[in-house]
Amino acid sequence: MMSTKPKLHYPNGRGRMESVRWVLAAAGVEFDEEFLETKEQLQKLQDGNHLLFQQVPMVEIDGMKLVQTRSILHYIADKHHLFGKDLKERTLIDMYVEGTLDLLELLIMHPFLKPDDQQKEVVNMAQKAIIRYFPVFEKVLREHGQRFLVGNQLSLADIILLQTILALEEKIPNVLSAFPHLQEFTVKISNIPTIKKFLEPGSKRKPPPDDIYVRTVYNIFMP
Amino acid sequence: MMSTKPKLHYPNGRGRMESVRWVLAAAGVEFDEEFLETKEQLQKLQDGNHLLFQQVPMVEIDGMKLVQTRSILHYIADKHHLFGKDLKERTLIDMYVEGTLDLLELLIMHPFLKPDDQQKEVVNMAQKAIIRYFPVFEKVLREHGQRFLVGNQLSLADIILLQTILALEEKIPNVLSAFPHLQEFTVKISNIPTIKKFLEPGSKRKPPPDDIYVRTVYNIFMP
Repeated sequence: MMSTKPKLHYPNGRGRMESVRWVLAAAGVEFDEEFLETKEQLQKLQDGNHLLFQQVPMVEIDGMKLVQTRSILHYIADKHHLFGKDLKERTLIDMYVEGTLDLLELLIMHPFLKPDDQQKEVVNMAQKAIIRYFPVFEKVLREHGQRFLVGNQLSLADIILLQTILALEEKIPNVLSAFPHLQEFTVKISNIPTIKKFLEPGSKRKPPPDDIYVRTVYNIFMP
Repeated sequence: MMSTKPKLHYPNGRGRMESVRWVLAAAGVEFDEEFLETKEQLQKLQDGNHLLFQQVPMVEIDGMKLVQTRSILHYIADKHHLFGKDLKERTLIDMYVEGTLDLLELLIMHPFLKPDDQQKEVVNMAQKAIIRYFPVFEKVLREHGQRFLVGNQLSLADIILLQTILALEEKIPNVLSAFPHLQEFTVKISNIPTIKKFLEPGSKRKPPPDDIYVRTVYNIFMP
């Protein structure tokens, strides 16, 4: 019998695929990765009609070749019961994820800014996090007093928020200092066994983007 | 009994709300609009905690205040059976919508570019449409021979694609010339009674962005 593990196609770095790695890991799903390293490898995927819109991330899963980050996340969340118990919970989760992804997008683009702009952008990210996004989640957790953001069970919203908090803390270590409930949330969600394992050395979690990652991305994707 | 029509909060123009207007109209749902015209009106919504992440689009619907364009679209699509009959159809619809929204985003940002960049961006949009996105949908329609993109019934994917095609044709009249199945799709979907009505004068569909819309948006959203 053939392996039925999902296979992820992306460069060997975080980018838009890291959320997919997080959600699969949190759901306890093992996966394989095929790292894009050259323009020719991307071209081969495109020529073979493996990429619906000519782009990665692409994930082979359950006989499909899924593309578009959000669509991949939604599929995995649906399949593994990480999307709430009814339409109302689903919609809350969707809104929380969309807000968090707006913040995460700033982190994803950060290494590709000019050096002069990178420091300014850290200030911008800190402000967005502290003024716009974190107060919402702090209030949600404070008011319902539960461990998870929605419906008292782990969802896509918890996973993407934890990913974003930890990535932001790498750049701004005290970013949660005014948010005690988010501090507690970070500890508790990090200790869920599947997530704890993903946070340990040797997992498929990718390190912060470095110059090699940035050069690889430019080499693959620039015309 | 109070009116239970959804109420849309956004400036009087297309922007990120126009897709919501399209989907509500296609679903045959009447709605009200509260047009933002000043920074003070936005501030009032923010101060009253009506905007989860301080931003519009916001839609009051079914006792909720929904934000984030995609989350609003997903909720309406779920409620009105525009999201497929199973997870596989749902995922196809989601991928088609995400691809189309990437193209639509270029149209949404276009009026805010510098005049010199606007013409170049029309060329870029035409290329993206003709090389990356339209061939996908042309092939889908050609291969299954059905009227709709997914599952032989109207979905969110058809609606957002038609919206995007018509907006693109305003700038590039012959953009569909190499895509006969998309031409036929455009005619057929445009003739669905609820959509036909939305395309007629006097509906809540908004005109192409003009200088007044651009100035209004700057006045409301710029610090």
